Amino acid sequence: MPDDVYAACCPCRDMLDLLANKWSALALGALEDGPRRFGSLRTRLQGISPKVLTVTLRKLEEHGLVTREVFAEVPLRVEYELTPLGRDACAPLAHLRTWVESNIHRFPAAA
Amino acid sequence: MPDDVYAACCPCRDMLDLLANKWSALALGALEDGPRRFGSLRTRLQGISPKVLTVTLRKLEEHGLVTREVFAEVPLRVEYELTPLGRDACAPLAHLRTWVESNIHRFPAAA
Repeated sequence: MPDDVYAACCPCRDMLDLLANKWSALALGALEDGPRRFGSLRTRLQGISPKVLTVTLRKLEEHGLVTREVFAEVPLRVEYELTPLGRDACAPLAHLRTWVESNIHRFPAAA
Repeated sequence: MPDDVYAACCPCRDMLDLLANKWSALALGALEDGPRRFGSLRTRLQGISPKVLTVTLRKLEEHGLVTREVFAEVPLRVEYELTPLGRDACAPLAHLRTWVESNIHRFPAAA
């Protein structure tokens, strides 16, 4: 079967579901410049709750887009970093984010 | 204020939320080749429920991405069509869909 996001049984569908999600798109973009700690991500993604950020990062980690590294320091330091796959996913997501920023004035609801 | 999807108060955030959504991305892509009736969209978007499709189309219509036209026929014909804005939004969304289809084999969860 060719990969087809329109097919309900295609694993692409799950992947599109993961990436085509506001918080995933913002979290991956926030990691483009290098690793960040949880608190730094939370500050960058204005308005996200700690719970939603935790769930978002766990999903990205499970799908191989982000790694989570724990440093044995006091206080404990936990850093999140893009994998090569996560880095590659940033291009289409950045395209979507910049399209929205450039076209926001055309949306009737934003008036 | 410059438009910034990372700012909680920016209207871009709502728009990213609308577009960065699996069903919106699939519905807009399905309309790229021309107008479609509700039933045709439902067939194309395998696995979507009528309720979710109705809500998705209504949101896209409210945000000026899709028009809904009712033809006084028996049975009633209702067609959905992309607006120029909706057509422009298809480019970044197609980028995301094709990236997922091309890279699905790299995802551990899809193994």
